[in-house]
Amino acid sequence: MNQWFNEELDENYFDLGARVSIQVGEMLFEGQSEFQKLQIMKTPKFGNLMILDGAVMLTEANEFAYHEMIAHIPLFAHPNPKRVLIIGGGDGGAAREVLRHPGVEECVMVEIDGLVVEKSREFFPTIACELDNPRLTLLIDDGIKYIENANNEFDVILVDSTDPAGPAEGLFTADFYKKVYGALKADGLMAAQAESPYYFQKTQKELFAVLKSIFPYTSMYLSAIPFYPSGTWSFAFASKQYTEQSHARTADIEAMTPHLQYVNPALFKGCFAIPNFVKKNLV
Amino acid sequence: MNQWFNEELDENYFDLGARVSIQVGEMLFEGQSEFQKLQIMKTPKFGNLMILDGAVMLTEANEFAYHEMIAHIPLFAHPNPKRVLIIGGGDGGAAREVLRHPGVEECVMVEIDGLVVEKSREFFPTIACELDNPRLTLLIDDGIKYIENANNEFDVILVDSTDPAGPAEGLFTADFYKKVYGALKADGLMAAQAESPYYFQKTQKELFAVLKSIFPYTSMYLSAIPFYPSGTWSFAFASKQYTEQSHARTADIEAMTPHLQYVNPALFKGCFAIPNFVKKNLV
Repeated sequence: MNQWFNEELDENYFDLGARVSIQVGEMLFEGQSEFQKLQIMKTPKFGNLMILDGAVMLTEANEFAYHEMIAHIPLFAHPNPKRVLIIGGGDGGAAREVLRHPGVEECVMVEIDGLVVEKSREFFPTIACELDNPRLTLLIDDGIKYIENANNEFDVILVDSTDPAGPAEGLFTADFYKKVYGALKADGLMAAQAESPYYFQKTQKELFAVLKSIFPYTSMYLSAIPFYPSGTWSFAFASKQYTEQSHARTADIEAMTPHLQYVNPALFKGCFAIPNFVKKNLV
Repeated sequence: MNQWFNEELDENYFDLGARVSIQVGEMLFEGQSEFQKLQIMKTPKFGNLMILDGAVMLTEANEFAYHEMIAHIPLFAHPNPKRVLIIGGGDGGAAREVLRHPGVEECVMVEIDGLVVEKSREFFPTIACELDNPRLTLLIDDGIKYIENANNEFDVILVDSTDPAGPAEGLFTADFYKKVYGALKADGLMAAQAESPYYFQKTQKELFAVLKSIFPYTSMYLSAIPFYPSGTWSFAFASKQYTEQSHARTADIEAMTPHLQYVNPALFKGCFAIPNFVKKNLV
């Protein structure tokens, strides 16, 4: 018998007044790591569902809309990304997308919670499928500590974090983004998940103020992600030299499009078109 | 004490496996018209909420993302829209946006359900605010019957309907869109709400097959609407002569942007960038 899972953000950090509800079946795994509570459930319509501390992380059916967008937009904006760092991303989806790029020689992924990686391998094999790729260096470690020792090393950094409560809280601070800046090469750029433009305006405003104080160029792009609050999700793009269009590799996007469910050349541009109410909040 | 309203689409027509839940307070109105059940509730976060046959129609907080997009995209794609027809749209939101265009001499709005109009005036005054505008001709009538007698009359037609179950069922058929084609002038164009790209792929595929069989040019655009299923909503654009860009009035969009919460020149283009999985479904 199917039941409804109701996202319980209100019990943590947020009081949204609206929530995502998904029909769920069998609980496949439930456990508490050192950092957070992990639940994995079957759903009748969307494949397996991962929940961290009561918040929906992904379903097998819709994860492409998040993972393609956090990875391909910054990677295609860079003329030649060879070394990529992922902070977080324990499910493996961002790494899978990064490794689609043949020019990427090494992708370093630093996930704080080994339980997420372990259970993603077990219950999300189509997402974790590249975690043993020889071009991937997977570290179970604190991304904030890792990045302190990285200097001028990466072409692209992806911050694939949870909400700014719990283990990801430090990933929304000026201190952290100064380290990201330092870890990037002179022409490096980064993308970070940046919450809902409808519901997390305060977090967005603060995050973009931080990024603008550190990076010479920042912008925002959007993706349609049904099970995140409001159904639309933001990503922050921040760069030392390039804008998202200045070195966009349109031919490479075109070539990868048949293998992708979301990203194509028109979408690479269109996703940076932001509604007025969102723009006003970032000024 | 606030409770949760859970959208009950599953009881009507759809079995989505996911649903929108909104915290609600006092029930302001509940009644059955000849056509559908109307409920209006207070919400603590999003202003008043309108529900028809268990499906969320709008909240005061988010309605702009729907009404601006159904109205301004087709109107700004037309070089000089003077006569506009709205089929449905009983809350008045689409009419409000159409009447922002000073070049529009007459907007005819044909809503089948007088109760929706009456209660929108009472409980949604910022949405129904232009229903007494002298440039608006408001008819409480069946839009399908109205359009049978309209020939070569309108520059732009908006189909602002509910889901294809209940009173709006006839608004998703080839027969209806042939009449829309006939009611448009030789260079006319139309937009119609076209359901969720994630959850209503069969409806979309059928609707676009119908439109392609009738109109020489069709395309799709998207808006981020938190309380519609999946949070992203589609609109069908169909035109006799113009594409969405061929006669786009960019300077006029720019001039109206300060008065709008959603639409701006970049967004006018960007909203037509469609993810791969949606495009594939329409082929």
